[in-house]
Amino acid sequence: MHSEFELIARYLAPAPAGDDRGVALGVGDDCALLAPTTGQRLAVSVDTSVADVHFPAEAPPSAIGHRALAVSLSDLAAMGARPRWCLMSLTLPEADDAWVAAFAQGFHGLCAKSGVALAGGDVTRGELAVGVTVMGEVAPERVLTRGGARPGDVLAVTGALGGGAGGLARWRAGARDLADPLLRRYLLPWPRLEAGQALCELAGAAIDLSDGLLADLGHLCAASGTGATLRPEALPLAEGLVEALGESDARRAAQSGGDDYELLVALPPASLEPARARLAALGLALTAIGEVTDEPGIAGSTVDGVAGWQHFSGDTP
Amino acid sequence: MHSEFELIARYLAPAPAGDDRGVALGVGDDCALLAPTTGQRLAVSVDTSVADVHFPAEAPPSAIGHRALAVSLSDLAAMGARPRWCLMSLTLPEADDAWVAAFAQGFHGLCAKSGVALAGGDVTRGELAVGVTVMGEVAPERVLTRGGARPGDVLAVTGALGGGAGGLARWRAGARDLADPLLRRYLLPWPRLEAGQALCELAGAAIDLSDGLLADLGHLCAASGTGATLRPEALPLAEGLVEALGESDARRAAQSGGDDYELLVALPPASLEPARARLAALGLALTAIGEVTDEPGIAGSTVDGVAGWQHFSGDTP
Repeated sequence: MHSEFELIARYLAPAPAGDDRGVALGVGDDCALLAPTTGQRLAVSVDTSVADVHFPAEAPPSAIGHRALAVSLSDLAAMGARPRWCLMSLTLPEADDAWVAAFAQGFHGLCAKSGVALAGGDVTRGELAVGVTVMGEVAPERVLTRGGARPGDVLAVTGALGGGAGGLARWRAGARDLADPLLRRYLLPWPRLEAGQALCELAGAAIDLSDGLLADLGHLCAASGTGATLRPEALPLAEGLVEALGESDARRAAQSGGDDYELLVALPPASLEPARARLAALGLALTAIGEVTDEPGIAGSTVDGVAGWQHFSGDTP
Repeated sequence: MHSEFELIARYLAPAPAGDDRGVALGVGDDCALLAPTTGQRLAVSVDTSVADVHFPAEAPPSAIGHRALAVSLSDLAAMGARPRWCLMSLTLPEADDAWVAAFAQGFHGLCAKSGVALAGGDVTRGELAVGVTVMGEVAPERVLTRGGARPGDVLAVTGALGGGAGGLARWRAGARDLADPLLRRYLLPWPRLEAGQALCELAGAAIDLSDGLLADLGHLCAASGTGATLRPEALPLAEGLVEALGESDARRAAQSGGDDYELLVALPPASLEPARARLAALGLALTAIGEVTDEPGIAGSTVDGVAGWQHFSGDTP
């Protein structure tokens, strides 16, 4: 059993101060001190992941650490921001060294891969939950918001859909091997940071897909004052999804399942091919799935009355 | 029963974009967009407050909202930073409109009084907890850290000590009236933001008192590579503390009780009177309580072997 301070010191290793990551003072004082880049906007977001609401409490701790950071970074991706720093709040029922070490390994691994510096955090006792605040930078003229879609724009998604819901279904069916592609999509999502930065000069609007395509498309349309027509048959399905769920449920998962963490963008038709080329260079597909319209509402969906995954609704892992 | 989105929209009212608070885009997109001041350091900190670990679950919701923000702002105070923005993560077991409305009133009230703009947040389901990320700004040459104490410096504290522990004792004894001064100190602490900014040109080091004087003095000494001599008889005691706990336990609470959220500073002897004058102008006392030494360890304490309040230690409200 270790004290809070020892846990923090051992596993929340600070980013070194004075290096090129803009951390003037890291974990261990009352605040971290950061040096933002002159002229850039600071994009900030926080997401809290609660055990057995957002992820299974029994998931591998390294995946819990990776995933908690990934879902926050996904918000930076949707704004076209470059990730710089994060803060992490870990609440856990007991001070279990091995668990925390594996958790930290997953968290720090994604920090390193995404170029984000852990600048601070706290460890408290309670029901297992992880809160991650991310901070990124973006030039004011390059910011991607939800509100810039225009009638006539093409709607397109990165990667493939339904993997979050499919992976959850696989978990519930007893799958535990992280080599399973769907389980990986659910437990080890990859934030589309490079894609967001590559698309921000071409797209008019973007949102990350956390609540499900239909719900998030609804948010984008509401912010833009538009409607949309969806072509469900065009949706790119995650690897193994049809095999796991069958064709009908796979299409349904792609439309209303949460936790995909792909980007949905609206862009002028002439920008679709240049955007595809940029993402191809990153090894990522971009698929046109519909159009922005001036008619309120979302037409074309084959899922009835589903507004996406919400908390408090009883739909938990 | 309201959906997550409705709760967020209704109670996490964003700071208006485009005003003088540096919020370019507020709550409701994937990220908030902030405009940091050129040349300033960004001071960031996060604190998570868990029900029945950090505060009583049955406390008035407006106090829970106030307190969760106050403990994070206290970290900015200790760095001498001016508060600018915050993000708030609320985890709660059910969507109770009246509770959330009162919570938000306490949170927004302190936002307004401290000049901090709520820039974003999330609402999730789970055991009651509140995570608050605060961001402030400070000129690089004015930063207060824990590491700048020098042998010969005077140790001084703002306000009065023991109120956090005394208020907790009053709560446990059944006190519920927030007119009780000790209960107010525990449930409605006031972050010493103006004091921190007023002291940063005079003090060499500072820390806020969250874990208890002895523990936090230990952190300050460790960061500064010094020791300290404490004069327990000099400690300023919170109003009503002796009456509530008796003389001996009151002195003990002032030394090892947590949750006071006063500032402990180390400053050259010649700076003590100017510092007192600055705080007097704010209506706040500054009391010399000991000296910084070059001898490792803390001498003079009348409390045996107490390293302050820690999580995982079983000492919960």
